[in-house]
Amino acid sequence: MKISRFVPPARVLLGPGPSDVPARVLLAMAQPTIGHLDPAFINMMEEIKALLQYAFRTDNSLTLPISAPGSAGMEASLANLVEPGDKVIVCRNGVFGARMADIVGRIGGTPVLVDNAFGEAVDPDKLADALKRHPDTKVVAFVHAETSTGVLSDAKTLAEVAHRAGALVLTDTVTAVGGVPVETDAWGLDAVYAGTQKCLSCPPGLSPMTLNERAMDKVKGRREKPRTWFLDFNLLMGYWGTGKRVYHHTAPINLLYALHEALVMLQEEGLEASFARHRQNHERLVKGLEGLGLEMAVPAAIRLPQLNSVLVPAGVDEARVRADLLAWFGIEIGAGLGELAGKVWRIGLMGQGSNRRNVALCIDGLRAALAAQGYHP
Amino acid sequence: MKISRFVPPARVLLGPGPSDVPARVLLAMAQPTIGHLDPAFINMMEEIKALLQYAFRTDNSLTLPISAPGSAGMEASLANLVEPGDKVIVCRNGVFGARMADIVGRIGGTPVLVDNAFGEAVDPDKLADALKRHPDTKVVAFVHAETSTGVLSDAKTLAEVAHRAGALVLTDTVTAVGGVPVETDAWGLDAVYAGTQKCLSCPPGLSPMTLNERAMDKVKGRREKPRTWFLDFNLLMGYWGTGKRVYHHTAPINLLYALHEALVMLQEEGLEASFARHRQNHERLVKGLEGLGLEMAVPAAIRLPQLNSVLVPAGVDEARVRADLLAWFGIEIGAGLGELAGKVWRIGLMGQGSNRRNVALCIDGLRAALAAQGYHP
Repeated sequence: MKISRFVPPARVLLGPGPSDVPARVLLAMAQPTIGHLDPAFINMMEEIKALLQYAFRTDNSLTLPISAPGSAGMEASLANLVEPGDKVIVCRNGVFGARMADIVGRIGGTPVLVDNAFGEAVDPDKLADALKRHPDTKVVAFVHAETSTGVLSDAKTLAEVAHRAGALVLTDTVTAVGGVPVETDAWGLDAVYAGTQKCLSCPPGLSPMTLNERAMDKVKGRREKPRTWFLDFNLLMGYWGTGKRVYHHTAPINLLYALHEALVMLQEEGLEASFARHRQNHERLVKGLEGLGLEMAVPAAIRLPQLNSVLVPAGVDEARVRADLLAWFGIEIGAGLGELAGKVWRIGLMGQGSNRRNVALCIDGLRAALAAQGYHP
Repeated sequence: MKISRFVPPARVLLGPGPSDVPARVLLAMAQPTIGHLDPAFINMMEEIKALLQYAFRTDNSLTLPISAPGSAGMEASLANLVEPGDKVIVCRNGVFGARMADIVGRIGGTPVLVDNAFGEAVDPDKLADALKRHPDTKVVAFVHAETSTGVLSDAKTLAEVAHRAGALVLTDTVTAVGGVPVETDAWGLDAVYAGTQKCLSCPPGLSPMTLNERAMDKVKGRREKPRTWFLDFNLLMGYWGTGKRVYHHTAPINLLYALHEALVMLQEEGLEASFARHRQNHERLVKGLEGLGLEMAVPAAIRLPQLNSVLVPAGVDEARVRADLLAWFGIEIGAGLGELAGKVWRIGLMGQGSNRRNVALCIDGLRAALAAQGYHP
């Protein structure tokens, strides 16, 4: 089998992630690899930590990128915070909550699912009720921005409810960070993890995270080691810490160049400006979709500006629309996941991909793909 | 804190890894990110699997890169193959064997350490004795090429010994693959994992692995799920399999571009030619080191051509030599690890970095750095 160079086709990534990566970030990543113990690299690690503190709005000293994608960040947080026998309330309102519950079971915890309908936000009252029924809950976990549905939950209120019951709060901000406010310190989120390939405009493969003192105390006070060596925070702290570094694994050097540059871009624009831009282009997109006679799947109050679920109109073959967009324009949009499979499209305007050019292109492309099926506004 | 673009210093990576990454691979990685469900990407995944089968010399259908560095490959193999209560013999002759034992304990297995001196190869007789004392051993794990010492063990014989006792064989080939023969099928290695940042000349962040039918049967027959979701082979098979793909995590797209190109380069050169080149430049290096009056730390018969441990001469400050090499020439060589800390340097000639230019540069650099401390051949 003779295999030759791979050349990716030209794409515009308007799905649930990865999002388009700016040339600046791609070129930063293509700089020559250096050693992970090189003084210059260690200095860059410090800068990444500071830039992530900015992105997460936190002063937590344990703020670092896990050397694997966002789902490893989910596993890392749970595997470290949850001890065998611990009860963990997982608020489920989409695909990613279900995944959390699976992980809790594997590491010996007891998951308690608090279910909200697919496409609804997590209900703080349901969480409060569950905490009353399970007062021995150690950790409450929820997804801030559900990528499978395009729904934003009220992390601040959920954290308050959990803290009143004495539980730690673990928040998935994979799709949130950089696109909507994530106030780690102000909201008292105890453990937060994210991904790089959504609103940070960086290739996938890293999971930024942050833990506050309360969470660190739980990790340090564990009765037994986490059931993972690769994701053990005590070991990762030794590798990323400010004292003498202890070799753990080989960090993904070039991906970290990319993350550094993507975070420099975020800092240059400013978080508030980034949030406003996501909001503004979201509004433009909704207007354009409504102009096509399409309906949003999620109520305005809980819509994610960076991930837009749109109802597939009756009589339209949703997969063919996606295929035509890809073939004719190179546009990738997302299919529905789980209960929403076949019922919605998911249109991402994430990170640098949230711009007017992409809104215009998306609306125009959809118009053409729908017209090909005899659908007209 | 104002942080601006990171520009890595010019380096020549002659340490234990990462090794220098060719411009071809860096540029492949810098191509625009596409979606992980894109038909073009899925086709590239198939090509990577075929190229890895070539590198591992195997027909195993489960041959894929884990989306995290080599140490995650170690954890993945153990977490899937070992069930709670399983006895695992870990042959330890360096730092990485010790790490395996730590992981076995975390996932509920019972590690039995078979110790060989730091800097020696794993002794098949010691393994045979241990298997007699522990006939209920389920898995035998060892490191083929110990990066901490520069020693090659006889994987073929070790596998024979383990199989005679009915145990599965798990082999760490992080530093081996591409540099010395790894005959997965011919030697009957049941599970093999590797890294990308050594003799494959790719940035760190991925761990290629392969499992044969025997190993897969063990994984499929588990009584309980692995204690990891992110590294669960049953789920990874769904994502990388040939049937309808099931979303698991978001693959590190751009790192996979890099791995694809690095493997295309390996295929172009051919494995045998690559092994011969590593051998030849190793011999040139040894000659040059002996010309400087330096002694190799490892007997010729078990030396790794790609990683050369050299004894630090009496009276020489080894850390200063490394610092001077870095400051004057941009050359990175490695320090000793574990018991060999302070006693040896580790000089890597790995992947595309194994070339005459680097041998000449290394010898010349060492001559200058040693002369600065009053040491002359």
